[in-house]
Amino acid sequence: MNSITLHDAQKRVDQWISQFEEGYFPPLVQIARLTEELGELSRAVSHETGVKKPKSGEPLHSSAEELGDLLFVLICFANMQNISLDNIFENTMQKIEKRDTPRWTLKKDFKHVQNEEN
Amino acid sequence: MNSITLHDAQKRVDQWISQFEEGYFPPLVQIARLTEELGELSRAVSHETGVKKPKSGEPLHSSAEELGDLLFVLICFANMQNISLDNIFENTMQKIEKRDTPRWTLKKDFKHVQNEEN
Amino acid sequence: MNSITLHDAQKRVDQWISQFEEGYFPPLVQIARLTEELGELSRAVSHETGVKKPKSGEPLHSSAEELGDLLFVLICFANMQNISLDNIFENTMQKIEKRDTPRWTLKKDFKHVQNEEN
Amino acid sequence: MNSITLHDAQKRVDQWISQFEEGYFPPLVQIARLTEELGELSRAVSHETGVKKPKSGEPLHSSAEELGDLLFVLICFANMQNISLDNIFENTMQKIEKRDTPRWTLKKDFKHVQNEEN
Repeated sequence: MNSITLHDAQKRVDQWISQFEEGYFPPLVQIARLTEELGELSRAVSHETGVKKPKSGEPLHSSAEELGDLLFVLICFANMQNISLDNIFENTMQKIEKRDTPRWTLKKDFKHVQNEEN
Repeated sequence: MNSITLHDAQKRVDQWISQFEEGYFPPLVQIARLTEELGELSRAVSHETGVKKPKSGEPLHSSAEELGDLLFVLICFANMQNISLDNIFENTMQKIEKRDTPRWTLKKDFKHVQNEEN
Repeated sequence: MNSITLHDAQKRVDQWISQFEEGYFPPLVQIARLTEELGELSRAVSHETGVKKPKSGEPLHSSAEELGDLLFVLICFANMQNISLDNIFENTMQKIEKRDTPRWTLKKDFKHVQNEEN
Repeated sequence: MNSITLHDAQKRVDQWISQFEEGYFPPLVQIARLTEELGELSRAVSHETGVKKPKSGEPLHSSAEELGDLLFVLICFANMQNISLDNIFENTMQKIEKRDTPRWTLKKDFKHVQNEEN
């Protein structure tokens, strides 16, 4: 399977949403939606760690399925706000590479991976 | 700018994490990390809607910046669990296209975008 | 109805949990539980605002019911960590009264309610 | 120290908020506030478990302090929606006592604590 680009993933979500009169939810509803989906992912992970038993009759979704829903809502939020996932991914990676390297223990056999421009 | 594929985004995050002895956090720490980042995104959106005023001296990050951090932690979670973002994105889109179409009002001038196999 | 004290609410939850071999969940599972319950509250509020329509067949719980569940899990977390709700409520109120008064517009006919010691 | 009742805790928060022209935030802003506070609690717990190291210069709040903030926002939400914490606590306890007993292993030396009417 070819991997989809961030740009095309945003476009596919937009094409689906744009069919409908309702369009995108307002920003705070989208935040509530993200919280809802993260809650479902949290439940799935709690069950998968084996500590928490599901209620009898409770539908079981895998963490993979719930992560897909969270990614979808994240893309909806980006689309509605005209945020490019490529831009924010690049910016976050550059920030982390600059800021967080001293927080962790570098493996001996690893040459430090760094953003070339810095 | 060329758009990065989901596969290459996962690989870039993995290369960064793999330099360090600590590696990926355990699943429940990652869930706590997602909640933390979603909390920061929620604060940014509350401020941007203009209803909530920031505390004096409170650092202001844009919702775009916070969304980048959330995407990064989402990718960390996927990597640690060996989840392919391509698979879960495709599965969620197919589920939504099947399940949610009757929930919304189709625009008159739109031909329904649908998963071809259905 | 007489109102229950914070102390007795903590005690009632502890008596229920203490019957069982499993006892309290570990801290990070409790955080995941809080996220799960906040997600359900978010869904209830999204539905009650009328913007988001429930999926067909989706069970509808009121925000009051979901808030009760969130309060229960919050008390579980406090109990497990030996946190007194009385202490943290008092500390938060004093912090807010000191810190946040200048952020808001005092009503003309209100004498400022303040922590007497300040 | 005498323990405060749920009713008086709601009243104290209401007296503080009612001084200000702004009053309570709208429901979805309150949900975003709850997510924000839960995110801060999540961070505190991640740090306290020792797996995640704080960023250099990152302010450290205890989980007790963050739980106090979460409780405050939970009470704000209840007040704004005219929800009695006594009612929702009682309803949740009765639901849990009825529904969840078979999910867990009763200790041998414990007489089952149960809602008397059942």
